[in-house]
Amino acid sequence: MSIGRLVILGVGLIGGSLALALKKQGMVAQVVGWSRREQTLQKALELGVVDRAEPDLAKAVRGAEIAVLGVPVGAMEVMLRQLAPHLEEQTIVTDVGSTKGSVVEAVRHVFGEPPPRFVPGHPIAGIERSGVEAAFAELYQGRRVILTPVSQTERHAVATVRAMWEGCGAEVVEMEVTHHDEVLAATSHLPHMLAYSLVDTLARMDESEEIFQFAAGGFRDFTRIASSDPQMWHDICLANRDALLVMLERFRADLAQLSDAIRAGDSDYLMQTFLRAKRARDRFCG
Amino acid sequence: MSIGRLVILGVGLIGGSLALALKKQGMVAQVVGWSRREQTLQKALELGVVDRAEPDLAKAVRGAEIAVLGVPVGAMEVMLRQLAPHLEEQTIVTDVGSTKGSVVEAVRHVFGEPPPRFVPGHPIAGIERSGVEAAFAELYQGRRVILTPVSQTERHAVATVRAMWEGCGAEVVEMEVTHHDEVLAATSHLPHMLAYSLVDTLARMDESEEIFQFAAGGFRDFTRIASSDPQMWHDICLANRDALLVMLERFRADLAQLSDAIRAGDSDYLMQTFLRAKRARDRFCG
Repeated sequence: MSIGRLVILGVGLIGGSLALALKKQGMVAQVVGWSRREQTLQKALELGVVDRAEPDLAKAVRGAEIAVLGVPVGAMEVMLRQLAPHLEEQTIVTDVGSTKGSVVEAVRHVFGEPPPRFVPGHPIAGIERSGVEAAFAELYQGRRVILTPVSQTERHAVATVRAMWEGCGAEVVEMEVTHHDEVLAATSHLPHMLAYSLVDTLARMDESEEIFQFAAGGFRDFTRIASSDPQMWHDICLANRDALLVMLERFRADLAQLSDAIRAGDSDYLMQTFLRAKRARDRFCG
Repeated sequence: MSIGRLVILGVGLIGGSLALALKKQGMVAQVVGWSRREQTLQKALELGVVDRAEPDLAKAVRGAEIAVLGVPVGAMEVMLRQLAPHLEEQTIVTDVGSTKGSVVEAVRHVFGEPPPRFVPGHPIAGIERSGVEAAFAELYQGRRVILTPVSQTERHAVATVRAMWEGCGAEVVEMEVTHHDEVLAATSHLPHMLAYSLVDTLARMDESEEIFQFAAGGFRDFTRIASSDPQMWHDICLANRDALLVMLERFRADLAQLSDAIRAGDSDYLMQTFLRAKRARDRFCG
């Protein structure tokens, strides 16, 4: 695949790493970067993540074959609204948002019917660091990218976005929008809430200093995801509220039962729960 | 320091690694191993973890300078009861249990007054693997070991146990028994409950196979501790029930508040919580 001009709207870790990967593979002739912040654009240019930094949105998208929306999901609708008047017919648009229902809804708000060349996407490749400084070409190697085309989406556009991600070393799968949001609520959004909540619970204790000192190996791994970007997670919570609340309810009910079993000294319940979890973990996660 | 004879009662990851570390440092003349299971003893001998495998408890402890209790905390009282009639006056006894209140209680049940040469201890060095096959000499390097002597404990005995662990590269700290159990409930026991409960919640969902397939990087780290030994965690839950329940209640209340904030779309609450957690994580855990 060979992309003439690609524009990244909102250059951060995700969009920046995509640009670096495509360049490394020689799959793109020119990468244009746009960002709300002048400083970010400057840095993207300095780091060689983009070939051209363009603070004017209309100019940035002109002549682009592919436009990648890299803004947080909470900023997606505003971004789309600014983008709409300048979007050329040939440009394939995709996003990298962690929730897909909210993005498709934003698209409907702005365009009415979703444009046939808009391909909702989600590379599952978050790390704790964020920002264009953290971008690197290998981020997507062996990672999964989920595309959630809707009925209006052109197959050709989907194929192009798929080829772009596969070129970066990712495995691309397609999924229904709502199913994506349910799966991610379970595997990513819920765990992040637990990590944030746990760290916050401990941080607000009187002995927090001492407590973190004695945090053992497992705890460090466990809480690593609580170092992720708060704004991004704020946006995800609200954008995927319904699916996340379903999972939170389910988890809270299970944790309440576990607490009851501990209180009651219910050995069987504890052994069964821990064994089932260990087997699932060992089976699925190696 | 130079130990003439050390006996490990219950040779697993923790006791086995201690034996290997002491041997590597040339700090012990002979390591005797005792285990309920013939097979474990055989393996410990084959792996060079112990110099002598002794299935007879009375013979195993005879002439020992230091006896290390490596059995799960739930088996501690039975072990102590079997040990008591054979324990020689000069032998310093220490344990490696993850809870200390329950161990001191077991000691009181068996001996009445805690023996002056019993030093309750806890090396914070758990990994997910268990068993003597997983033992390695470097496990304790840079790790912490908490000793929780009681008023009856001889300072000389504490100093000996301290020197033993320091010789293995560990940093030794002393703490009150109940304080140890509170700190560990917060930093280790609660996180393990969350990891087990999360994996179990997901494993029992209809789409569990698919869900684990899409579990991203953060999730793997997050759930790694759910691979730990179920029997050990069953024992810890019951042995440290009170302190663990306090932490579970606190966490559940905080998680309920976070759920409410997500439901209400309370942006301020979400941002504040995530920021506070990120700051604490970054500050304390690097």
